[in-house]
Amino acid sequence: MKADIGLIGLAVMGQNLVMNMNDHGYRVAVYNRTTSKVNDFLTGNALNSLVIGTHSLEELVGSLSKPRKIMLMVKAGEVVDAMINQLIPLLEPGDILIDGGNSLFTDTSRRTDALGAKGVLYIGCGVSGGEEGARNGPSIMPGGNKQAWPAIKGIFQDISAKVDEQPCCQWVGEQGAGHYVKMIHNGIEYGDMQLICEAYQVMRKGLGMTCDEIHVVFEEWNKGVLDSYLVEITSHILTFKDDDGEPLLDKILDQAGQKGTGKWTGINALDLGIPLTLIAESVFARCLSSRKDERVLASDKLATTLPTWQGDKQQVIQDLHDALYASKIISYTQGFMLMREAANEYGWQLDFGNIALMWRGGCIIRSRFLADIKQAYDHDNNLVNLLMDNFFADALMKADAGWRHTIQLAVQLCIPIPTFSAGLSFYDGYRSAQLPANLLQAQRDYFGAHTYERVDRPRGEYFHTDWISSGGKVSSTIYDV
Amino acid sequence: MKADIGLIGLAVMGQNLVMNMNDHGYRVAVYNRTTSKVNDFLTGNALNSLVIGTHSLEELVGSLSKPRKIMLMVKAGEVVDAMINQLIPLLEPGDILIDGGNSLFTDTSRRTDALGAKGVLYIGCGVSGGEEGARNGPSIMPGGNKQAWPAIKGIFQDISAKVDEQPCCQWVGEQGAGHYVKMIHNGIEYGDMQLICEAYQVMRKGLGMTCDEIHVVFEEWNKGVLDSYLVEITSHILTFKDDDGEPLLDKILDQAGQKGTGKWTGINALDLGIPLTLIAESVFARCLSSRKDERVLASDKLATTLPTWQGDKQQVIQDLHDALYASKIISYTQGFMLMREAANEYGWQLDFGNIALMWRGGCIIRSRFLADIKQAYDHDNNLVNLLMDNFFADALMKADAGWRHTIQLAVQLCIPIPTFSAGLSFYDGYRSAQLPANLLQAQRDYFGAHTYERVDRPRGEYFHTDWISSGGKVSSTIYDV
Repeated sequence: MKADIGLIGLAVMGQNLVMNMNDHGYRVAVYNRTTSKVNDFLTGNALNSLVIGTHSLEELVGSLSKPRKIMLMVKAGEVVDAMINQLIPLLEPGDILIDGGNSLFTDTSRRTDALGAKGVLYIGCGVSGGEEGARNGPSIMPGGNKQAWPAIKGIFQDISAKVDEQPCCQWVGEQGAGHYVKMIHNGIEYGDMQLICEAYQVMRKGLGMTCDEIHVVFEEWNKGVLDSYLVEITSHILTFKDDDGEPLLDKILDQAGQKGTGKWTGINALDLGIPLTLIAESVFARCLSSRKDERVLASDKLATTLPTWQGDKQQVIQDLHDALYASKIISYTQGFMLMREAANEYGWQLDFGNIALMWRGGCIIRSRFLADIKQAYDHDNNLVNLLMDNFFADALMKADAGWRHTIQLAVQLCIPIPTFSAGLSFYDGYRSAQLPANLLQAQRDYFGAHTYERVDRPRGEYFHTDWISSGGKVSSTIYDV
Repeated sequence: MKADIGLIGLAVMGQNLVMNMNDHGYRVAVYNRTTSKVNDFLTGNALNSLVIGTHSLEELVGSLSKPRKIMLMVKAGEVVDAMINQLIPLLEPGDILIDGGNSLFTDTSRRTDALGAKGVLYIGCGVSGGEEGARNGPSIMPGGNKQAWPAIKGIFQDISAKVDEQPCCQWVGEQGAGHYVKMIHNGIEYGDMQLICEAYQVMRKGLGMTCDEIHVVFEEWNKGVLDSYLVEITSHILTFKDDDGEPLLDKILDQAGQKGTGKWTGINALDLGIPLTLIAESVFARCLSSRKDERVLASDKLATTLPTWQGDKQQVIQDLHDALYASKIISYTQGFMLMREAANEYGWQLDFGNIALMWRGGCIIRSRFLADIKQAYDHDNNLVNLLMDNFFADALMKADAGWRHTIQLAVQLCIPIPTFSAGLSFYDGYRSAQLPANLLQAQRDYFGAHTYERVDRPRGEYFHTDWISSGGKVSSTIYDV
C-alpha cells in the first residue's frame, strides 16, 4: 500500500508533523539524510504507527501514491536547493513538492517559478506552533503553485489547528506568499515577545516585584484582552522553579539570538518603505542583548544612581497592561501595513481576514486579539490600517493614558522600553496631520536642491529655493540623500 | 595639451566638482550622455575656464593624459555598470576609474574586483557636501584599489574641504569601503536631520513657538556643542520668509522622500546584527511622513484633546538641547559600532579617527562634535564604543536629566519623538548589565526547544527545560525564530 505523503527531515518539527498526520489516518513515508534517525524514529516516537521508513530518496519516492506529495522539513537555504536538485530527476509532472521550513520568500518565489517550468508543483508553506503545534495542530500558511492546493488541502487542514471549527490553514497566495506571511508572523512574534519582556522588566527591575508576583499579573492578564499563548507561557515560566527552589528564570542568561525571519521582516519593511518600527526595535533589542560582556562593562562605566520607585503598584500594573495592549495593536497594525504593501508590490491577492484567522490558533502568536483583527477585516476587507477600525481606535483611546504613564515611569526609572516607545511615537505620528518633515524637506532642498512640494499648491509641483545667495539654479539629479 | 582628469555626468554635483578642480589648476575634460549639456556647461558655469568639452567617450578618453583618470558622476545602479562596460574597451591597464556617486558598497566591491582582473584600477568614492561642498570643498571618502591612490591623492585632497589644514579626504579601505563609509555618513545624516526635526516639533507644536523664536534657539545652539552645518542651515531656514512675508517653512509639505543610502544603512545593520536603532527610526520617520493623506484622515479618526503646555520655557529649551545632544551621541555611537562590525565582517582596515576627520568638514554632517569623536579615537583607536570614552560618558551623564524630561514632556504632549526615545532606550539598554532577554530565551526554549545558557554556568553550555510535562526530549534543529 502506497503512502499518502512523504516527509524529509526528522528533526523535532518534522517528527511531530508526521505523528500529527499519522493520527489523522494518513500514511506517511519518511526519510532523513542521516538515515539512522529514521530507525530511531520508527522505534521511538513512531512505534506502532502507520509510518513507513525509507533509506534513500528513490525508496521514498517509490513508496508514494501519485501525484506524489513530498514535504521538506530541512534547514532553510542551500539545503533546500540541494534537496530539490536531488529530487527533481525522481519526480514526474504533477508531483507536488512542499517546503515547510522557514525559507526566505524570495527563494520560494524563485523555486516556485523554476519548478513550475518543469511541471512540478511547488508549495512554500509556513508552519508555526513550535513542537507542540506541529504535534497537535499548527498554523499552516501555504502559498505557491495553486494547482497543488486541492491535492493537499485535505491533509493540511486536517492536521492544522482549529478555532471555532475553522482550520488555521487557508490558501495564502502565489509564489512565496506563504513564506512571506510566515515571515511577518515571526516578525510579529519578535514584537510580542519583546513587549512582554519590557512589561516584565518594568515590574522586575522598576517595581522590584518577585517572579511569583509577576506570574500572578500575567496569569490575570491572560484572562482579558491580552489572552494569548505567549502571555500564558510567560506566566508558566515565571512560576517555574529550578532544582534549588529558586525561579529558573533568574538563572537564564539574558542574551537572545536573532537571525532569519525577524531580521528579514525588518529588511523587507525598509525595502518597501513601511514604518515597521516596533518589530525592527525588537530585532535590535535582541542584537543589544547579545552584547552581554559590553553591557556589563558599560553598566559600570555609565552607572548612575537609579531612582527608587514608590507609588501605587496596582495603578502602575494597570497602566502597564494598557501599554502592552496598545503597543501590541501598533505592532500588528504595522505588520498588516507591510503585508498590504507587499501584496501591491509583488502582485499577490492576500486576504487579511484569512491571515488573521490562520494565526488565531495553532501558532506562537495565537490569541483572542486575532479574532478582533479578523472581525475588523470582515467589516472592511480594504481597511487601509487597523487603527482606522472602530474597535482598535477605541481600544487605543482607552489605553492612551496608561501607555503614556508607563513610558514616563520607565524613562524615569532608566528601564529601556524600545518597543513601548516606538509604538507610541508611531501612534502619535500616524495621527499627526502635520509632521516636522517640512523642515526635513527644506534642509534637503537647502543642501542638495532636492526640491519640495507646498501645502498651498497641488501635489506634484516641485519647488526649489535659492536659500543662500551663492547657490546655483542647476536642478539636482544626482545627489540623493 | 592633455587633460589631467575626465568627468562624466554634468548634473549639479558633477558640474561643481569640475569647477572645483578647475579652480585648483586641474585641466578637466567633461562628457555627458545628453551632449547638449556639455555645450550648456561650457557656455554657462564653465565659461572662461580650462574645462575641455567632449562629445563622445572616445573623444573623452583620447583627451586624457596617462594613466587616465575618469570620474563618473552618474546615477547609481545600472547606469554605472552600463558606463563601465562602454569605457572598458577604451581603457588600458593602469587607467583609473572613479565612481563618485552614491553606489551601494557591494556593487563597488564587485566592480573593484572585476575591473582589477582587467588591470583597471577602480575607486569607489563617497562625496558629501551637496552643491556647496562639491563646489568649494567636499568631504571625499575614497576606497577600492589602493594602487590608484597615489595618482589621485593630490587632486582629491586639493579639492576637498580642509579643517585645521588637514584635508577631509583620506584613504578609507579596500573594495567598497569608501562607499560604505559614505553610506554610514548618510545614515547618520538621516539621524541628525530627524533629531533636529523632533526638537523643532516640540517647540513648534508643543510649546507653540513661532519660527522666528525657534530660529533664535537654533542660532544659539549653533554656538555650543551642537555647532554643525545642519543646525546652522536649520536656523537659516527658520528665518527665511516667503513672498508674502510668512515663514516659507510653514508652506512646505511635510512629506519626505527616503530611498537609497539611509535604507541601506538600516538593512546593513540588520544584516550584521548591530542595534542601529536611531537611524532606522529616522528612515521609518520619513516613510511615515510620506503617508500624508492617511495621516490627515487618522488625525481626525484618532483625535484626542491635546493637553496644552504651561511651564518654564527656558528650562524646556535647555532640556531639549540636552536631549538633542545626547541622542546625537547615541546615533554616532551606533554608526561607529556598525562600521566596526563591517570592518570585521568584510576584512577592511578602517581608521575611525580618520573617518571622523573626513567628516569634520565639507560634508553635510560636519560639526565640532566630530572633532571630539576624532579625539576619542586618538586616545584609543580600539575603543569598543564611543560611550566608553570619558568625554562622551561625561556628556551623557550631564545631559541625562534634560533628555528624560524632554521625552516625558513630548509623551505627555503627544509629539512623536521616535529618535529621542530610541536613543534613550539604547543608552539605558547598553548600560544594563541585566536585560529581560532571559525571559525571551525562556520563551524560545518553551515553545521551540531553542535551549539557553545559564548565568551560573560557563558560556557555551546549553540547557533545555521540559517546561510542560507533555514536551518531548527531541532537541530542536529546525524551528528557528
